[in-house]
Amino acid sequence: MYDDETDVSLLDTTLRDGEQAPGISLTPDEKADIARALDRAQVDVIEAGSACTGEGERRTIKQVTDLDLDATITSFARGVQNDIDLALDCDVDGVTIVVPGSDRHIETKVNTTREEVIADTAELVEYARDHGLWTEVIGEDGSRADLGFLEELMATAFDAGATRVCYADTVGHAGPERSYEIVSTLAEYGPVSAHTHDDLGMGLTNALASVAAGADLVHGTVNGLGERAGNVALEEVAIALDHSYGIETVDTTQLYSLGQAVAQATGVQLPPNKAVTGENAFTHESGIHTDGTLKDDRMYEPYPPEKVGRERRIVLGKHTGRAGARAALEEHGVEVDDEELTRVVKRIKEIGDRGKRVTDADLLAIAEDVKGTDRERRVEVLDLTAASGGGIPTASVRLRVDDEERVASGTGSGPVDAAVTAVREAIGQVANVSLDSYEVDAITGGTDAVVTVEVEMSRGDHSVTVAKSDTDITSASVSAMVDAMDRLLTVPGEEPDVLADD
Amino acid sequence: MYDDETDVSLLDTTLRDGEQAPGISLTPDEKADIARALDRAQVDVIEAGSACTGEGERRTIKQVTDLDLDATITSFARGVQNDIDLALDCDVDGVTIVVPGSDRHIETKVNTTREEVIADTAELVEYARDHGLWTEVIGEDGSRADLGFLEELMATAFDAGATRVCYADTVGHAGPERSYEIVSTLAEYGPVSAHTHDDLGMGLTNALASVAAGADLVHGTVNGLGERAGNVALEEVAIALDHSYGIETVDTTQLYSLGQAVAQATGVQLPPNKAVTGENAFTHESGIHTDGTLKDDRMYEPYPPEKVGRERRIVLGKHTGRAGARAALEEHGVEVDDEELTRVVKRIKEIGDRGKRVTDADLLAIAEDVKGTDRERRVEVLDLTAASGGGIPTASVRLRVDDEERVASGTGSGPVDAAVTAVREAIGQVANVSLDSYEVDAITGGTDAVVTVEVEMSRGDHSVTVAKSDTDITSASVSAMVDAMDRLLTVPGEEPDVLADD
Repeated sequence: MYDDETDVSLLDTTLRDGEQAPGISLTPDEKADIARALDRAQVDVIEAGSACTGEGERRTIKQVTDLDLDATITSFARGVQNDIDLALDCDVDGVTIVVPGSDRHIETKVNTTREEVIADTAELVEYARDHGLWTEVIGEDGSRADLGFLEELMATAFDAGATRVCYADTVGHAGPERSYEIVSTLAEYGPVSAHTHDDLGMGLTNALASVAAGADLVHGTVNGLGERAGNVALEEVAIALDHSYGIETVDTTQLYSLGQAVAQATGVQLPPNKAVTGENAFTHESGIHTDGTLKDDRMYEPYPPEKVGRERRIVLGKHTGRAGARAALEEHGVEVDDEELTRVVKRIKEIGDRGKRVTDADLLAIAEDVKGTDRERRVEVLDLTAASGGGIPTASVRLRVDDEERVASGTGSGPVDAAVTAVREAIGQVANVSLDSYEVDAITGGTDAVVTVEVEMSRGDHSVTVAKSDTDITSASVSAMVDAMDRLLTVPGEEPDVLADD
Repeated sequence: MYDDETDVSLLDTTLRDGEQAPGISLTPDEKADIARALDRAQVDVIEAGSACTGEGERRTIKQVTDLDLDATITSFARGVQNDIDLALDCDVDGVTIVVPGSDRHIETKVNTTREEVIADTAELVEYARDHGLWTEVIGEDGSRADLGFLEELMATAFDAGATRVCYADTVGHAGPERSYEIVSTLAEYGPVSAHTHDDLGMGLTNALASVAAGADLVHGTVNGLGERAGNVALEEVAIALDHSYGIETVDTTQLYSLGQAVAQATGVQLPPNKAVTGENAFTHESGIHTDGTLKDDRMYEPYPPEKVGRERRIVLGKHTGRAGARAALEEHGVEVDDEELTRVVKRIKEIGDRGKRVTDADLLAIAEDVKGTDRERRVEVLDLTAASGGGIPTASVRLRVDDEERVASGTGSGPVDAAVTAVREAIGQVANVSLDSYEVDAITGGTDAVVTVEVEMSRGDHSVTVAKSDTDITSASVSAMVDAMDRLLTVPGEEPDVLADD
C-alpha cells in the first residue's frame, strides 16, 4: 500500500482550525512563536489564520509572513473574492479556499446550487492563481457529499489551475473505507490533501486511509486542537507515518517541545495519556512493565522517547514491583537488602492502594523507617499565617531550622507566593534550593475541595518531588516546599551544610 | 467488509489495564461503582483487576463479583497456575491469561523458550477450563511476534479448550495492515479478541482493522486510560462501530456519564477536545459553525449529542458571529437591533483577541454598554481579608449591598471557602443563590502564576457564568462570585428583591 518512495507533507492548521476551538485565542506574539516552532520542526505548510476574521487576525498573519520562514504560509478563505484579497493583504504564499461540498452545506447553509458552487470555484481559483497564490480548494463536508458532484467540482478546480484539492471530513463523520473511496477518486485529477476531524476518534484512521489512497498532504493541529473533538493531531500523523510506514514528514525530535509550547500558549493542558506528547507516554509504573523495561528499553515501547525529544520515566505506585523500587532507591543513594526491599514494596503499595501518588519523599521516609535509620528533620514548620484578599498579600512563618527557631515574613502576588517568600527568608540564602516545578491539580467541585500541590525542588545535582493535599492551598504549598527543602538539606553520605541565618 | 450481521462485544479493562496507568489507584468502592456503571452501559465483559497483585486487589475483585452483574467478570492472570487459583478465590467468571508472544518477551523478559510457552499454555488453559472458567489467552506483544509461532500457540490454546484468544498490540506498535494480517490468521482457529494501545495514536485504527479481520471482542478502557499513552478508549470503539458500521455494542447513551464517573474517580480529567466525552465535543463557537448549527443541528455534528447522553453548547469567543451572539443575548432576555448587534460582536471579538474567555457576565456588560442601559450594581466588594495557613482559615468582607455597607466574617476549610462564607453571610439568606460550579484551571509554572477562577451560579431559573483572573486565588474567587450574585439579583424585566440583612 505504501512504499519508501511515498512522499507526504504536513499542513499545520493549529493557528487557524486549532484556534477555532472553543475558548482558545492566541495573541499575535504567541502565534508567531508557534509558527517559528513549526518551522523548526520542518512542517511544510503553515495555515496562519483566516484573514477575513478581522483586523487583529490580519495583523497576526502579517506578523507570521514577516518571519520569512521556510514553510509555505497560507490563509484560510471562504468562497468569496474579498477573502482572497484580504489574504493577499497579509502577504501570504497561498490560500486554502473552502467551498461547500455536501448538499446540506450548499442548500441549507449557503443557500445556493451545485452549479453555482462549481462556477464560483472556477472563478475564485483563477483569481487566486492570477495573483500568484499556492491554491488549495477544500470541499467542506466532503465526507457527506455526493461523490459524483465532488469529482466534478474538483476536476473543475484543477482545470482552473488549483495547486491541489482537499478532501475534508469536516464533522469527523467518515470511516476509512469512505475516505479511501473519495481520495482515490479525486487523486486521479491531481494532488489531494486530507483534512480530518476526531469526532468518532477516527481522525488518524481517516488520515492514514487518505494517504493509502494517494493523499500527499495531511492537515493536522498540534495537540489535536480544533472545533469540537478537534482535528487529527499533527504529532500523531507524523509518528504513525514514520513508525508504521517509514514515511518521514517532519523533524520528530521537535514534537514534544512543540506540544508543550502550544499547551502553554493555549492553556489547554495535555492529558497524561496523550499519544506521543502526554506526560505518561514513556512512563512506567507497573511491576511487569518496569521490570521488563529495566531488562530491555524496547520491551514496552514501540519507539524510543528520544525520537520525539523526550526521556523515559519510571514512577512508583500501587503496581510497583521489586525491580522498580530498587532502581528508585538507588537514584537517591539508598541501598536495601532483599528483606528490606520486600517491606519497602509492601509500603509503597499501601500508599498506592489509598489512591495516592508515591513521591520521592514518601519513598525516602519508607526506606528510613524500614532500615531503622533515624533521621532528624532539619526544617519544620511551627506556625504559618497568610493574609490575602485585599492590599498586599502577606505571610509570616515560624520555622525550626536545626535547633533554632526562626521567624520571617514576606509579601507576594498571592497568599502562597507570600508564604513561600517568608519560608525562603527564614531558611536563608545558603540553602540555595530552587523550585523547578509547582503544580496544582485543577480544582473542581466546590470551594472546599481538597487541593493537591506537587513540587519538584533541586539543589545541585539532587532533586526531590513532594506532594501534599489539603483544603487550604497555602498550607499544602508551604508544607510541600518545606518537606522538599528538608530532604535536600540532608543528602545521604554527605556532610550537612550549616544553615546560616544571613 | 462489515455487514449488519457482524456481532461485536466489548471487554472493559479500565479496572485492570486502565488502573495500571502511572499515578492511578482506585479504591474498592470506586471500582465497584465503575463496574456498576459499566454494567448499566451493557458492557459484556468486565476485567475487574489482577488477582495476583495482592490481597487488597483480591478483596476488590471479590467486591465486584459479589455485585451479581449481567457482565462476565474476569481477572487478569500471568501464565502461572497460582494466578488462576488466586482468580478462582475471587469467584470470577473467567480469566484473561497472558503468555509471552514475541521472542523479546519469551527470551529476555521471561527467559524461556517457544516450546515451553506452548506447553505451559496448554496446561494452564486445561486447568482454567477444568475449573469452569471463561478463558481467553493473550499473546503478549503479539504485534511484534513471529506470526507462525503465534498461530501455533493459539491453535494449541484452542485445542486445550480456550474460549477465545487475543491479539495484543501491547506496546501500540502496529499499523492496521499488521493487525489485519494477524487477526485474520488467528480467526481461522476460533474467536479472536483485540487488545490495542495508543502509543502511535492508532489504538482505534488497529481495533477497527481487527474487527474487519474477524475479531468479535474488543478490549478498551473508559477515557483511554492505561499504561503510557493508554489503551484504546472504549467509548470511541463503541461510537465508531455504531456510527460507521452500524454495529451496536453497548448502550451509548451511558457513555458520557461513564466517562465522567471514571474521570472523577481517577482524578484524570478529560481534555476538552476528547472525542465523544470531552467538554467541547458538542460545543460550537466560531461564526460559520454556530450559524450553520442554528440552521441545522446536523450541520457540524456527525451524530446528535443525545446519542451519548449529552447536550449541544454554543459559547462566545473571538470567532463568534452575529447569529451566535444574538442567540446568547436572547437566552438572557436581552434584545438588540442590527446596529447594536454589530457593536456587541465587535466587543466580544476584542475580549477574545486578548485570549480571554467570554462569559455571560462579559456579554451582559457589553450589551448594557452598547444599549446605554445604565445598570446600578447591587453588590460590590469594598474590602476583603482572608487569613490562612494555620489555625482556622478565617475571612472578613465589607460589601456594599444596595445603599448599605455590610461587614461579615466567616470560617471555612481554606481561605477561599472562608471568604465565600463571609460573603454569603453579608448578603443574607434571602438572596438564595446557589454555586453550581467552581473551577480553577490547573496551576503550572510557579507560585506567582495567574489563576483563573470560573463560577456558575444560579437563582431560580436564571444562571450566569463569570470568570476572574488574579495572582491571588482568594480575590479571584470572591470577585467572580460577587459579580455573579450581583447579576442574579437583577433579572431584566423583573422587580428586584429586597436584600434583607437577616
